[in-house]
Amino acid sequence: MIMHTIIDLIEKKQQGKELTRNELRDFVLGYHRGEVPDYQMAAFLMAVYFRGMTPEETSALLDTMVESGVKLKWEGLNGPVVDKHSTGGVGDKISLMLAPLLVADGCYVPMISGRGLGHTGGTLDKLDAIPGFRTRVSLEEIKSLLPRIGCVLAGQTAELAPADRKMYSLRDVTSTVRAVPLITASILSKKCSEGLNGLVIDLKVGHGAFSDTKEFAEKLAQALYENATRADISTRILLTAMDTPIGRTIGNWLETREAIEWLHGRSDLIEVNELTLSLGAEVLDAVGKGPFDAAYQRLEGYWKSGCGVEIFAKIVAAQGGDADVIFHPEKMPNAPIIKTVTASRDGYLNGADALWFGKAGVILGAGRRVVSDSVDPLAGFVFLKAWGDFVKAGEPIVEVHGSNETAVADVIRDLPQSLTIESERKVLSSWVLARHEGKSF
Amino acid sequence: MIMHTIIDLIEKKQQGKELTRNELRDFVLGYHRGEVPDYQMAAFLMAVYFRGMTPEETSALLDTMVESGVKLKWEGLNGPVVDKHSTGGVGDKISLMLAPLLVADGCYVPMISGRGLGHTGGTLDKLDAIPGFRTRVSLEEIKSLLPRIGCVLAGQTAELAPADRKMYSLRDVTSTVRAVPLITASILSKKCSEGLNGLVIDLKVGHGAFSDTKEFAEKLAQALYENATRADISTRILLTAMDTPIGRTIGNWLETREAIEWLHGRSDLIEVNELTLSLGAEVLDAVGKGPFDAAYQRLEGYWKSGCGVEIFAKIVAAQGGDADVIFHPEKMPNAPIIKTVTASRDGYLNGADALWFGKAGVILGAGRRVVSDSVDPLAGFVFLKAWGDFVKAGEPIVEVHGSNETAVADVIRDLPQSLTIESERKVLSSWVLARHEGKSF
Repeated sequence: MIMHTIIDLIEKKQQGKELTRNELRDFVLGYHRGEVPDYQMAAFLMAVYFRGMTPEETSALLDTMVESGVKLKWEGLNGPVVDKHSTGGVGDKISLMLAPLLVADGCYVPMISGRGLGHTGGTLDKLDAIPGFRTRVSLEEIKSLLPRIGCVLAGQTAELAPADRKMYSLRDVTSTVRAVPLITASILSKKCSEGLNGLVIDLKVGHGAFSDTKEFAEKLAQALYENATRADISTRILLTAMDTPIGRTIGNWLETREAIEWLHGRSDLIEVNELTLSLGAEVLDAVGKGPFDAAYQRLEGYWKSGCGVEIFAKIVAAQGGDADVIFHPEKMPNAPIIKTVTASRDGYLNGADALWFGKAGVILGAGRRVVSDSVDPLAGFVFLKAWGDFVKAGEPIVEVHGSNETAVADVIRDLPQSLTIESERKVLSSWVLARHEGKSF
Repeated sequence: MIMHTIIDLIEKKQQGKELTRNELRDFVLGYHRGEVPDYQMAAFLMAVYFRGMTPEETSALLDTMVESGVKLKWEGLNGPVVDKHSTGGVGDKISLMLAPLLVADGCYVPMISGRGLGHTGGTLDKLDAIPGFRTRVSLEEIKSLLPRIGCVLAGQTAELAPADRKMYSLRDVTSTVRAVPLITASILSKKCSEGLNGLVIDLKVGHGAFSDTKEFAEKLAQALYENATRADISTRILLTAMDTPIGRTIGNWLETREAIEWLHGRSDLIEVNELTLSLGAEVLDAVGKGPFDAAYQRLEGYWKSGCGVEIFAKIVAAQGGDADVIFHPEKMPNAPIIKTVTASRDGYLNGADALWFGKAGVILGAGRRVVSDSVDPLAGFVFLKAWGDFVKAGEPIVEVHGSNETAVADVIRDLPQSLTIESERKVLSSWVLARHEGKSF
């Protein structure tokens, strides 16, 4: 005489009880099919935020999300299928830098990325800044491009983990993003659908990341590791610093341009080089192309040779983009307004408030407040100094790129207090804070 | 540079922070106007379930709900405007019994009631069982009926606290009903809109009520008392027992018929008489028609005189109902199937599982699983014995009324184990467990 309904399942989670695999499956597939309305899923997600999920529930959620779509299978490739995923940072263009180097080492990289939202950027928006580049790639195209080009840089198609896509959109607008089981299932549902052999996750920790505490990051790393391993993906996780923006630029085209310049083998940003090559060496080691140090040296060799630019141009051309821009980024226009902010005092530029810069980027039009916002590819920031450089009062240190006078003026007014200029030089020796490869760090 | 959105407000509550009066007002009125979607309100309500609300937030929510509609003002009446509200029980037909007696004592009773949902019944469904009776009464009709008839028994119109109505529908389907601030604001928004001088709340406590613990009931009583007092309604709250069904019947017409029979001055159910007259005497005392004992005696006098039947018939006729049925309830048809369940052993019938009978009523068609379900006015249960009566094995004790053979058979199969037949007589001396009239019990 028990009446089983969706309301009962919401209540069960609300009361802290464990849902069975079948109950979760009914709920999530029912939502995917449109039988369960958004408001019931929203209430459930908020209950999960407060109550969490058991490992069994998380694994059932992940499996159901994968089941809702197509799972790619790769046959006849002469190298491992790998991917790198970042949990989201400010100025994070590392995917664009690393993918070509992994291809150079004989890997296949079917990289499904997302758009930026709130203060963190998204790889798709950076790629969209390249004239002609199509990030909307069909499943059939992905299947044909990967063996031929070695890499596809695409958005989540309707066929890959569609239940995740629908749930993610809802989480965005209901303040239910920051929950370990939901993040875990969402990230890995896409990665499992890609048919990967190896994966490296750049788990950002700090003020500018949603993992703002090490404790949260470690819980998330553990859940990601357990579930990825269970799904037969050899996975490495690096916890990396996200208090200060990565590299010299923030903004879609500005970051793509920085990635292209980096791929030429040029960079004085030791921390960015180490971060990128470490992530790459981890995933190579994970798929048997190690050990780590040898893999690191190979990747460093490709980087310094500049061969990454050719590979990146090939990927861009295969997806309809203007490869000429990759060889001559100076041909792209600049934002109509560029203003320079100078140092307020003498001292070492030890860092900048990544969260502030991410939010200020949204004001300039470089990011989105809500999913439906469009972005200005040219807006953003260029840092004229590296972290730890000595600067003199009045010396230019940041360019603000935008198209709206009021927005630029607003940003410039508050910008100086978001820079850390101190009497002593104090920068991280490495942005890799910890490495997760199993039960502990 | 702060971006205030609905998401920020959901997050604020999620993080346990207090929303300002204006923030809550924007959220709730935005939802009322359709600018805030159901899924954001659902996530917010679940966050409120976990985080609660401060007294200031609860009061802002209540005020906003009232503000969303019309607030009735009564002028030129020669008696106080009072109402009785029950938080919901099984077999609870006390509103139908009490309203005519309050009219007999010179009160005006604009009683806005709800429909049943889940295992608890609703006054509107009981009234709908009377042929021709219209529970959909416009605001203009309410204004004209009350001074003339002394009582209106109606559903919540679109004009009275519409934001509450919309939120309540959503709470029903998202497992967010059981939260003190939400219950408080929902109940009182309707009562404040009615323009009351006095109110008595029958706060049901026990297995068959949503207040299943005394602790929860006391929190709710405190919040109700504070907010009703702030809204200038002289309020009394009784905590009453809800482990065993009230009276001899469960089901819409069966309960209405029991109420009519009671109004004739006939009843051997001492606990029902005491409960009804106590609730009435409390509200009379609250509006200066006390003291309690004198008011109780007056109400008992009206009851025994049978004048309540005439008044009830007048109310019914004024709202289009067939008053003849009130004087001759035996003219109404019975359910097509009536089966009798007998005692499984000798002993005292000390009680019955109210929750089980409520749920079994839903199976028989007497109640709703979801708001859109229709109800069978004739389905339900008739207890042939009073609580505490000695029964002999094989003696008939319950009639099951229904129209579906399978449903009746299902219910009959499980029914015997939901009756408490024991060797010793053990019944409550009073169903009024506690009385709340200020800071403490």
